[in-house]
Amino acid sequence: MSTDSTLIVDTVFDLDALLTDEERSWQQKARTFATERILPVIEDDFESKYFRRELVAELGAAGFLGMHLQGYGCAGAGAVAYGLVCLELESADSGWRTFVSVQGSLAMSAIYKHGSEEQKQHWLPRMATGEAIGCFGLTEPSGGSDPAAMTTTARRDGEEWVLDGAKRWIGLASIADVAVIWAKATDSDGSTAVRGFVVPTETEGFSATPIDGKLSMRASIQCDVTLEGVRLPADAVLPGARGLSGPFSCLNEARYGIVWGAMGAARSCLEAALGRARTREVFGEPIGARQLVQGKLADMFVEYEKGVLLALHLGRLKERGTLTPAQISVGKLNSVREALHIAHEARSILAGDGITSAFPVMRHMANLESVRTYEGTDEIHQLVLGRELTGIAAFSSASVA
Amino acid sequence: MSTDSTLIVDTVFDLDALLTDEERSWQQKARTFATERILPVIEDDFESKYFRRELVAELGAAGFLGMHLQGYGCAGAGAVAYGLVCLELESADSGWRTFVSVQGSLAMSAIYKHGSEEQKQHWLPRMATGEAIGCFGLTEPSGGSDPAAMTTTARRDGEEWVLDGAKRWIGLASIADVAVIWAKATDSDGSTAVRGFVVPTETEGFSATPIDGKLSMRASIQCDVTLEGVRLPADAVLPGARGLSGPFSCLNEARYGIVWGAMGAARSCLEAALGRARTREVFGEPIGARQLVQGKLADMFVEYEKGVLLALHLGRLKERGTLTPAQISVGKLNSVREALHIAHEARSILAGDGITSAFPVMRHMANLESVRTYEGTDEIHQLVLGRELTGIAAFSSASVA
Amino acid sequence: MSTDSTLIVDTVFDLDALLTDEERSWQQKARTFATERILPVIEDDFESKYFRRELVAELGAAGFLGMHLQGYGCAGAGAVAYGLVCLELESADSGWRTFVSVQGSLAMSAIYKHGSEEQKQHWLPRMATGEAIGCFGLTEPSGGSDPAAMTTTARRDGEEWVLDGAKRWIGLASIADVAVIWAKATDSDGSTAVRGFVVPTETEGFSATPIDGKLSMRASIQCDVTLEGVRLPADAVLPGARGLSGPFSCLNEARYGIVWGAMGAARSCLEAALGRARTREVFGEPIGARQLVQGKLADMFVEYEKGVLLALHLGRLKERGTLTPAQISVGKLNSVREALHIAHEARSILAGDGITSAFPVMRHMANLESVRTYEGTDEIHQLVLGRELTGIAAFSSASVA
Amino acid sequence: MSTDSTLIVDTVFDLDALLTDEERSWQQKARTFATERILPVIEDDFESKYFRRELVAELGAAGFLGMHLQGYGCAGAGAVAYGLVCLELESADSGWRTFVSVQGSLAMSAIYKHGSEEQKQHWLPRMATGEAIGCFGLTEPSGGSDPAAMTTTARRDGEEWVLDGAKRWIGLASIADVAVIWAKATDSDGSTAVRGFVVPTETEGFSATPIDGKLSMRASIQCDVTLEGVRLPADAVLPGARGLSGPFSCLNEARYGIVWGAMGAARSCLEAALGRARTREVFGEPIGARQLVQGKLADMFVEYEKGVLLALHLGRLKERGTLTPAQISVGKLNSVREALHIAHEARSILAGDGITSAFPVMRHMANLESVRTYEGTDEIHQLVLGRELTGIAAFSSASVA
Repeated sequence: MSTDSTLIVDTVFDLDALLTDEERSWQQKARTFATERILPVIEDDFESKYFRRELVAELGAAGFLGMHLQGYGCAGAGAVAYGLVCLELESADSGWRTFVSVQGSLAMSAIYKHGSEEQKQHWLPRMATGEAIGCFGLTEPSGGSDPAAMTTTARRDGEEWVLDGAKRWIGLASIADVAVIWAKATDSDGSTAVRGFVVPTETEGFSATPIDGKLSMRASIQCDVTLEGVRLPADAVLPGARGLSGPFSCLNEARYGIVWGAMGAARSCLEAALGRARTREVFGEPIGARQLVQGKLADMFVEYEKGVLLALHLGRLKERGTLTPAQISVGKLNSVREALHIAHEARSILAGDGITSAFPVMRHMANLESVRTYEGTDEIHQLVLGRELTGIAAFSSASVA
Repeated sequence: MSTDSTLIVDTVFDLDALLTDEERSWQQKARTFATERILPVIEDDFESKYFRRELVAELGAAGFLGMHLQGYGCAGAGAVAYGLVCLELESADSGWRTFVSVQGSLAMSAIYKHGSEEQKQHWLPRMATGEAIGCFGLTEPSGGSDPAAMTTTARRDGEEWVLDGAKRWIGLASIADVAVIWAKATDSDGSTAVRGFVVPTETEGFSATPIDGKLSMRASIQCDVTLEGVRLPADAVLPGARGLSGPFSCLNEARYGIVWGAMGAARSCLEAALGRARTREVFGEPIGARQLVQGKLADMFVEYEKGVLLALHLGRLKERGTLTPAQISVGKLNSVREALHIAHEARSILAGDGITSAFPVMRHMANLESVRTYEGTDEIHQLVLGRELTGIAAFSSASVA
Repeated sequence: MSTDSTLIVDTVFDLDALLTDEERSWQQKARTFATERILPVIEDDFESKYFRRELVAELGAAGFLGMHLQGYGCAGAGAVAYGLVCLELESADSGWRTFVSVQGSLAMSAIYKHGSEEQKQHWLPRMATGEAIGCFGLTEPSGGSDPAAMTTTARRDGEEWVLDGAKRWIGLASIADVAVIWAKATDSDGSTAVRGFVVPTETEGFSATPIDGKLSMRASIQCDVTLEGVRLPADAVLPGARGLSGPFSCLNEARYGIVWGAMGAARSCLEAALGRARTREVFGEPIGARQLVQGKLADMFVEYEKGVLLALHLGRLKERGTLTPAQISVGKLNSVREALHIAHEARSILAGDGITSAFPVMRHMANLESVRTYEGTDEIHQLVLGRELTGIAAFSSASVA
Repeated sequence: MSTDSTLIVDTVFDLDALLTDEERSWQQKARTFATERILPVIEDDFESKYFRRELVAELGAAGFLGMHLQGYGCAGAGAVAYGLVCLELESADSGWRTFVSVQGSLAMSAIYKHGSEEQKQHWLPRMATGEAIGCFGLTEPSGGSDPAAMTTTARRDGEEWVLDGAKRWIGLASIADVAVIWAKATDSDGSTAVRGFVVPTETEGFSATPIDGKLSMRASIQCDVTLEGVRLPADAVLPGARGLSGPFSCLNEARYGIVWGAMGAARSCLEAALGRARTREVFGEPIGARQLVQGKLADMFVEYEKGVLLALHLGRLKERGTLTPAQISVGKLNSVREALHIAHEARSILAGDGITSAFPVMRHMANLESVRTYEGTDEIHQLVLGRELTGIAAFSSASVA
């Protein structure tokens, strides 16, 4: 937490030497934002389950929304710069990194990658500033890991499309201005494909209810969305996407941000533990003088550094245009799993006071459970990677055959 | 949670065969109490940080308060019966098992083991019914693991004792009727020893403030206690305790309850995961049909069963009167560590919905972080055991010399 | 290794109190045997891949062969007594416990459970003394975990049976006098079932070749067995077994012995590490004075004690006649996995000298890799348990359907 | 093992893209050497404890000896190129990578960094070709982790130096032509410092005995060295080293090589497991179709890739001249620990046949236990890193004060 311990974690490994000046500048801007705008309010917001909407425009003004996209008011930054911003924001709270992911990597990316020029012109500039909030409706109540089982449908009624169905765990939906909704669409010629629709949330038949009772990500919003006879004009469909590769390409964008982001939560936990270890005295000496504490700190640090090196490697591959889904799976699996492990170890070092909001660790621990689940559980990513290595799909008993 | 999965966890290992009828009867009574009185309200109480005081008298009426003590209105049950009650209560929430521990194993035990006949007669019967709530003041702000560094003092002023100091993480203090406070006492003859004092909480100079901002054990109360010139009559001192062995003997009682209790939280998590695995379908089959899920369930179950076998072994040793502090350290270390591990694995099986209060797992996870810390961290118990095995104390650099 | 550290591990947990005098007597006899007959020669035998056949008769004289069987010259000891003997023998070397398992739990058990009175009378007494060595042929080259895929056949030719096929990893086969061979048998009426045959190894067409290049269990023998037109009289078949339940009932006997045995290897490793920690000085103090070493020792001890408690629980269930295959799977999975973990941790404490035969740890580590594999890998036992918990078989993609 | 699986591990992560052509050329040369010269003989050499001396000249001819040094017949390659060679050699056997480390990173480095021009001219060229073998005598019988406790002495007798003492675990000493021996040297003026001596092994009083009974690194040689009145000319001392920083600078060279090397053993294990998983059929399908196997493979792969990324990061820092000891500790700790973990997991996938020399995994597992110990145990490196993070040394109770 102290500048002091931050510096230690940052300097021991000399990762800065691998960044460009521009990247360091984005990093610094995001660190300042996290420190000055999020940290002072986050414990209260988490406790009271409050999404602080006024920060959205500030994130837009800082250039963080859709920052890796080119044109349409977006910053056009590189993948590593975007990753660093995710890391710094999530060092404050996973909820705010998630907001940036949903807005920039899911909703804006979907329109950017698959939308018509008109759709881009209409939505992207106002989403980049934060004037408009977007959401991304793919997951359904029956299961997040299997989008192929989608039951939301779109059918033609004359020129119009009519959407019916339900989505779950849709970030921001209740405050969004626009939703990208994926549905099994049947066209007038009877052809069927998963397609995406740009749905203004004010459209009749669209409703979103925040999911209650959350013990994780309490400073952000996830919703149940219902679509009942939602009528859209013909041009509401995203022309560039047919099939699951459409939404999957966006998920990979979001996963990439998580690879970096989770390391931010990890760093915050490591810093908290380190600061405590250096200052908390028991038995007449700082607890950081104990071998058992140093052993934990060392192991946490090793995993933190490896996680950041991995994120950086993926970022450079992304910038080169060769990043593969299997590589992203390695990163998503590793970053969140290790961040959780670091959080647990940090908690154990903080002892009693560490269960309160005086330290961010309980909050990060809780948040990371959401991050571990969304955009693919550990098991899904292990099996993606297992398929890459063995050539055999083993997602379910059916998939093996 | 379904009766069905409960039965499975209970029956696969046939632990029931190791219990007496009386023990099974206590177990059943506590399970009913947990199911009917705690589970229906605990999620709300946890969310709103509410200690439901009306349950105290019900716990008393059920015979759970000081149930392992003989006479004075206590049930005089065996150590295993008491352990089973701790397990069942903590399967609902660690906070309520903690209440029973603070009341019965700490406050009542202190008076029972070290008090005068008058003190026992006065306090124990009404504490057994729950009419009076007790607390136990040992830990201080400067550190829980090192009671030898105690700064709270008691001095003589004529016949009276005057207490000054501060305590932290004192369960129930703000609602307690009586506090057992440990202090460095200097007698009229100048002799000094750690001694215990029975302090009615209405005594002037005693104040207790609940610790705020907790993200764990939110349905129970822990306090900062201040003692400013608290004047007590001569007979407020516990006659039977001089030195740290006094409070330590009570801590060992409380630790013993934790050994069983934490397995209750673990069982609840295992049951939740198992129930979900059997019913949640993704990719067209229950997730419990997946090898990666079955592997986790199997490992959780193995650790749960070993934890219960260990608790039972310790209970039988306690009943035989040979239970040692090192053996209790084995149990406390193991039960909480494995319960936390089981909770983390359960969380990963529940996926999205598992971050809400629809499942108890996030709450147990959060609670267990407190349980891991109080009555000795993992490291303290590893070093207690390390000393037993090597003959060398290594708690701090000073202790090695 | 010193008496001293042995005592510590034995006494801290007071497990002795749970044993009968007779059990302690068997334990002591086996400990003496291990210490006096095996330990002095085992390092040389392991290095030179030598099976010291002269010990077989001594094991017989001590009553360890088929010791849990009743009559026919067998000792008729209880399950716990047998388990303790397994533990003590494996504390010297897994190879010798394996010998006792193959002879007593597999070959003798098969004849005892499924044989005719004539078969029992003929073989069991001389196998109990060690005059005759038995082996058990179930596993085939194509895979140990799936006996249902058996390709060895037995067919009728008049009154005779003719066996053809191949077995692999058959302990003792090249020195055995008799082999119990399991085959898919087709009777004269065309009916088919897996059946067992008592095959004198001198029968023409039976050959056994020790498997070479082993880096584990080098002081014992495992073989490839070939059966080429092996002709047996009609009464060579075990009358009591039809189907896989026949050999499986023997495997469960062997697994039960492993549950105890692996804890013996674990204890030996723990003792070696503990002895070293107490005596090896670096930086001017015993390495056992280090917190990081004490932490490892404590964790090893905790797992050792839990493993023994679990074995004891299973033994008592077996004596009561209620032990289930799923319970045995819990024990086999746990004992070997934890023993390996203990061995790895012990190795890390021994530092440089610990890679030599001056310490038993590298040898135990290597041996336990065999023990982990035979009689069911971790995964098989996880899935056995997973099936018990979820009600769904997931051994292969086919089994899920 | 198959070209096929090698390619998979190499290609999934696209690490090649981070290498220069020259680096890839060194990598290929070492891979060919490992495959063609070491693999065909290593199982036999390991079994028979044979150091195949004729390969030394071949390693020299390939340019691998002292390859990161400039001039004196050395190749002058970069740190990453050297690391890649270590990785490829250790993918065959840790013993041969160790040979290259002892020769190049310890003995040659000591002379190169601290020697006189005459010493360099005399020794380095013939050591680079392998004509002369060098060894490095620092560790003593009383403990490898604490060179400050050195008891070997050098004293002046006129112009000559006289060395007395003992060293242990000295690689290659019994076949070496020259030994760099570190001793507490007292000069004619009475001043004392740890200094290094270039000792031709034919010098009277120098003797070396291979350590017997090894169950690890059996294809290489480690010795006990005795120095009894070893008389050396005045110019035998290394002029450039005074104090422990002299030998420590060489240890850091060796540790750097281990960071890469251990990942070679890991890759070999991963490849073996992967090859087996793709081809071994049980229950009617490749075991690689099982989720539990894919989960292990995925986790092994993730750690392998992170380990290589970390090694590469350290290599680039070394080339930039900024690599710190704490960073090397991160690498040594991580690489060996994770390589061992990968080896254990690979073993579990290979099942029965995997305990034989048909697969390299048991051998790598055994070897890595040596690698884990030498050049600093896990604990030493955790505490080096702990000191860096907390500012407090905790190597022993004395060091904390």
